[in-house]
Amino acid sequence: MSGLGFLHRPTSVAVVGASDDPEKIGGRPLRYMREFGYGGTVVAVNPKRETVQGMPTVPRLADSPVVPDVVLVAVPGQAAVDAVRVAAEMGSRGAIVMSSGFGETGTPEGLRMQDELLGHARAAGMRVVGPNSQGLASFESGAVMGFSTLFTEEPPADGPVGIISQSGALASVPYGILRRRGIGVRYAHGTGNDLDVTAAELAAEAVTDPGLKLLLLYLEGVTDPESLVELGERSRERGVPVVALVGGRSRSGSRAAASHTGALATERRVLDAFLERVGIWQVHGVRELVAASELYLQDWKPQGEGLAVVSNSGAVCVLAADAAEDADLPLASLSEHTVARLDAELPTFAATGNPVDVTAALLTDSGLFGRVLPVLGDDDAVGACLLGIPVAGRGYDVERFARDAAAFAAGGTPLVCAIPQPNVAAPFRAAGLPVFDDEDSAVTALAQYLAHRRRMARAAGLPRPALARPGDRGGDGGSLNEAESLAALAGLGVPVVERELVGSPSEVEAAFGRLGGRPVVVKGSSATATHKSELGLVRLGCATAADAVAAAEAVAASADAHGVGLDGFLVAPMVRGLHEGLVGASLDPVFGPVMLLGAGGTYVEAVPDTQVLLAPCTHDEVREAIARLRMAPLLAGVRGEPAADVDAWADAVVRASEALADPSSPIAGFDANPLLLLEDGVVAVDAVVLTR
Amino acid sequence: MSGLGFLHRPTSVAVVGASDDPEKIGGRPLRYMREFGYGGTVVAVNPKRETVQGMPTVPRLADSPVVPDVVLVAVPGQAAVDAVRVAAEMGSRGAIVMSSGFGETGTPEGLRMQDELLGHARAAGMRVVGPNSQGLASFESGAVMGFSTLFTEEPPADGPVGIISQSGALASVPYGILRRRGIGVRYAHGTGNDLDVTAAELAAEAVTDPGLKLLLLYLEGVTDPESLVELGERSRERGVPVVALVGGRSRSGSRAAASHTGALATERRVLDAFLERVGIWQVHGVRELVAASELYLQDWKPQGEGLAVVSNSGAVCVLAADAAEDADLPLASLSEHTVARLDAELPTFAATGNPVDVTAALLTDSGLFGRVLPVLGDDDAVGACLLGIPVAGRGYDVERFARDAAAFAAGGTPLVCAIPQPNVAAPFRAAGLPVFDDEDSAVTALAQYLAHRRRMARAAGLPRPALARPGDRGGDGGSLNEAESLAALAGLGVPVVERELVGSPSEVEAAFGRLGGRPVVVKGSSATATHKSELGLVRLGCATAADAVAAAEAVAASADAHGVGLDGFLVAPMVRGLHEGLVGASLDPVFGPVMLLGAGGTYVEAVPDTQVLLAPCTHDEVREAIARLRMAPLLAGVRGEPAADVDAWADAVVRASEALADPSSPIAGFDANPLLLLEDGVVAVDAVVLTR
Repeated sequence: MSGLGFLHRPTSVAVVGASDDPEKIGGRPLRYMREFGYGGTVVAVNPKRETVQGMPTVPRLADSPVVPDVVLVAVPGQAAVDAVRVAAEMGSRGAIVMSSGFGETGTPEGLRMQDELLGHARAAGMRVVGPNSQGLASFESGAVMGFSTLFTEEPPADGPVGIISQSGALASVPYGILRRRGIGVRYAHGTGNDLDVTAAELAAEAVTDPGLKLLLLYLEGVTDPESLVELGERSRERGVPVVALVGGRSRSGSRAAASHTGALATERRVLDAFLERVGIWQVHGVRELVAASELYLQDWKPQGEGLAVVSNSGAVCVLAADAAEDADLPLASLSEHTVARLDAELPTFAATGNPVDVTAALLTDSGLFGRVLPVLGDDDAVGACLLGIPVAGRGYDVERFARDAAAFAAGGTPLVCAIPQPNVAAPFRAAGLPVFDDEDSAVTALAQYLAHRRRMARAAGLPRPALARPGDRGGDGGSLNEAESLAALAGLGVPVVERELVGSPSEVEAAFGRLGGRPVVVKGSSATATHKSELGLVRLGCATAADAVAAAEAVAASADAHGVGLDGFLVAPMVRGLHEGLVGASLDPVFGPVMLLGAGGTYVEAVPDTQVLLAPCTHDEVREAIARLRMAPLLAGVRGEPAADVDAWADAVVRASEALADPSSPIAGFDANPLLLLEDGVVAVDAVVLTR
Repeated sequence: MSGLGFLHRPTSVAVVGASDDPEKIGGRPLRYMREFGYGGTVVAVNPKRETVQGMPTVPRLADSPVVPDVVLVAVPGQAAVDAVRVAAEMGSRGAIVMSSGFGETGTPEGLRMQDELLGHARAAGMRVVGPNSQGLASFESGAVMGFSTLFTEEPPADGPVGIISQSGALASVPYGILRRRGIGVRYAHGTGNDLDVTAAELAAEAVTDPGLKLLLLYLEGVTDPESLVELGERSRERGVPVVALVGGRSRSGSRAAASHTGALATERRVLDAFLERVGIWQVHGVRELVAASELYLQDWKPQGEGLAVVSNSGAVCVLAADAAEDADLPLASLSEHTVARLDAELPTFAATGNPVDVTAALLTDSGLFGRVLPVLGDDDAVGACLLGIPVAGRGYDVERFARDAAAFAAGGTPLVCAIPQPNVAAPFRAAGLPVFDDEDSAVTALAQYLAHRRRMARAAGLPRPALARPGDRGGDGGSLNEAESLAALAGLGVPVVERELVGSPSEVEAAFGRLGGRPVVVKGSSATATHKSELGLVRLGCATAADAVAAAEAVAASADAHGVGLDGFLVAPMVRGLHEGLVGASLDPVFGPVMLLGAGGTYVEAVPDTQVLLAPCTHDEVREAIARLRMAPLLAGVRGEPAADVDAWADAVVRASEALADPSSPIAGFDANPLLLLEDGVVAVDAVVLTR
């Protein structure tokens, strides 16, 4: 996984298909490396011309005077495969194949060539980026081994942001946006088909760069979760946040991704849980991908939790408060001391709660912001500030406002500005402050920045997800019957109901007695039947032994009628829970064992209320997941009901998750629904367990 | 309500407090009217100067040589009140009071002056805008009777958009954004305290302007729902959409609004239902307020329902599909004929489904967009198109792309563009096409535009909401007891359970017999007790007459123990529903009778699943509201259960809503929970009815 640093700082680069035309795919990298200051050796390979763009050429890659560190391939089809073969034979460390027409076409010939190409590289231990790659562009070293038009349109400048994308367009678009905002970009990589080196693997390399402060990632699928786990770990160690956009969330988007990069559809909630687990912040569009960039580049040290809002407009105060609630960013409750200090600074008609409306008094008292912000910053409840100036201009001392705001932010308290007028925003931007067009965008970016920090800190304390083992597809071994399932579930650490398994209806009477004569439920035990209630295989509330025997006979008759084979009859006491929950697990082909928990009962498919966690998970994670359920308010006990034992539920999920994460576990998944939630403990009364 | 046109085209304007300084509040309107071409008479009132800004003055308003059509007041406190009095006495039609220090301060003196001011105006039939108003700016007539700094910062141009706002800042901010985007603005009004003329009333006047194509509205509360109803009606008649931002959605935002404009907190769901009902589109921030403006100004004629996406980037296709699903805008399913035509136009490796990925072939075939768009437009399933060009520039015939796109959109099919590069976007903008920075923003704006059209069409078929009558506060008359409540509920048209009311436990036996000997429930009937189950006033499942009598005695004992007075004992057959629903109603102090429907049972407060509709409502509205409930999937019948009678539920809600909307109704509200949903019909088994 590591050792990809040479792709960022190659000692030499050969371009196969070097073109004299600086606008062609084979011409642009030559021009870019020349213009953007690449200091290594460049070898131009072209069998038809003595020179390209003023550089001497060699006719064949094999004629290169040096073993190229990296070979950049801009010739099509089989010629590209051959170039990779030669590079591998020469001992190059890597090849970047920009040519398309491979796996992404879905054609047999494209797939065959791709396989051959990979074979040559693997045989020699050479790494390959692509094919169908826009190339890798490193602006620190000047090794711009790619053909993005954008480097012509928006001149590069080295800086603290890395962009790594499977899609060339989605490397170029954030590059362009950031450059137009004056932010330097160190990497803009478009990796393509990810046949060997994946975008995630490159990202895990890039994030170790001491000059990086933010990494933006675009993926259309995850084939390489190990690299993302490693990316998350390094991101946290180095304090370099990763913001990821994964295209294909929707059904139609996922279909489009399959035809674009051949991405496999992932159950999205599992991916979401995974990214949250490893501390990567997920966004849902390009705008969001870059929206908070300026915040990540600051050297703030947030202390408190709450937001303080200051504006010269009451309406902006109102809208910022609305936006803060939308973004789950609470407004700080100011201390009495703070309010008293604000009262002393502000005119009597100003609002000195939070938000702070300094009113039009700003026009005559240019020092207002400079006096109010430090008062807010001194309050322990204030973790960040928003300064909203919807209207200013002639008559306002805007330069001073910007100076005062920058001086305040330099103290370490996050400060974002909402300033729609470009001329008013300019001095704030010049002072290095993040400025947004409106309070909503500013608050949203700030909330992301703060929540992402918390998520990274939290991720550092969580176990590594188990991830998939080869062949994980979930339940290939088939399902156990009800009796075996309940036993296996108990073995996983999930409490299950007391029960008796008997072979025939006549034995039910004795089982009833052994259970103490309490009312019982009688079920047919079968490994094949699902939705047992609909098939008449479950009889509830048998109050007497005779009832129970009759119930077993009825179950047997129903099983016959539906052609269901029974392994016996389960007799169990009727248990009433306070609420019905569920716990389940399955094997994701990429992310391995995944836990499901939520509201149980017969409506779980029609009205789902569930949460997903990767195994193994912690008690705290499960408690948080339970708290996110719609049913959560019921668990504390409403209308005089007792509280349910949420700790016991969490324990059961944690124990089962640890068992599933054990590589030797024979269990591929299970479904315990309902899991009855009691005042003291939980108990599964129904289970299906799948084996590997 | 009507007759405010003179505020947009006054024949003469007197400025009280006319200043020689063109940057002062009393100076700016003079300068603006001069610079922006106001053609009527302007009278400058200043007792201290012979001229201001080169204009002759009169010392007192009463000395004006003409009766000013509108008097603009820029003097503080009592002087403003006096100016209003004089204006009223002179026979002016309106006064605009820009001075602050009135009701918005919350001080007794401010409120007193405000009352006096209103009294003078009312006595003479003169209308008043403000106080605390930024003024009204009409750029068609040049009557810029306001002081916004923005008119200096961003020069005005008359155009098709009106902006009406209670907040001055929120009139100026959208004005600035639109002007910077090159869009003309006809009105930018900041109304202030809305003591007499409200923002809604001005909006209802503005929307009748034949030159207007879009009206943007900012409010911090609704005091004048009649004007909003009228605004909605005129908006639909004239085809001028209204987009509204109402600040104070959140708890803290609502508190801030109370201190900013003294807005009353409205139950937000009622406001949301109201705006939807009258066809006004509600947004949640400034960015959204202006985001779709360019779309509203087009002369499109959308036909189909679905979105078609075309791009030269596969990733943009993926992200646009994701965004479309987020925005509830379905991707069009193209006909086989369309796909065959696309296949003929596109390279073999292009994706010819929807989204259409034309790939990098665009670089060599500049006519691709021009050929593909009309093929999509011909498909009946396509209602709108998105063109995404994430990367272009040198080597691309961008001018031709823009020409082809504009020619296509001229045919009436909505077309939005997602083009992040300013130089690539420029020719599209110049051709009049709406261009966004990213596919998410483009799709979101398009979805709003299309959904708003549908909402306006739907609103045209709905009855006027009843709205509040004076004194509506809900339930001042107290609650009826259970027996009276059920009877009253039946009178409203909601089916209620068969029942017997008896005075003592001993009479329960006969009641049991009259109900046919079925198992019954026995309840204590009381007008005061809520949560009867917790008080032991409900006994379910009495199978025999003796059980029922014993139950009544136990209820009587519980009532005694809790000090609850009983009016008798209700005996009713046990009814089992498929599901528990609820229907309720209350009186909103602004919007009048409001219906509530949703999932019923004991958890309705802890885990609410309800929808709100204004009375009277239609069967279709109720069906749609039921379909939005989380419980909706259950109603069709899952896991072999029969479907519930949703029609009967809807009928009950409609009938009750019509009864409540009748001004003579003595009912102020009710709560029927649970309303049992049956296979055939619905039945209320529990009710509390409040009277006026």
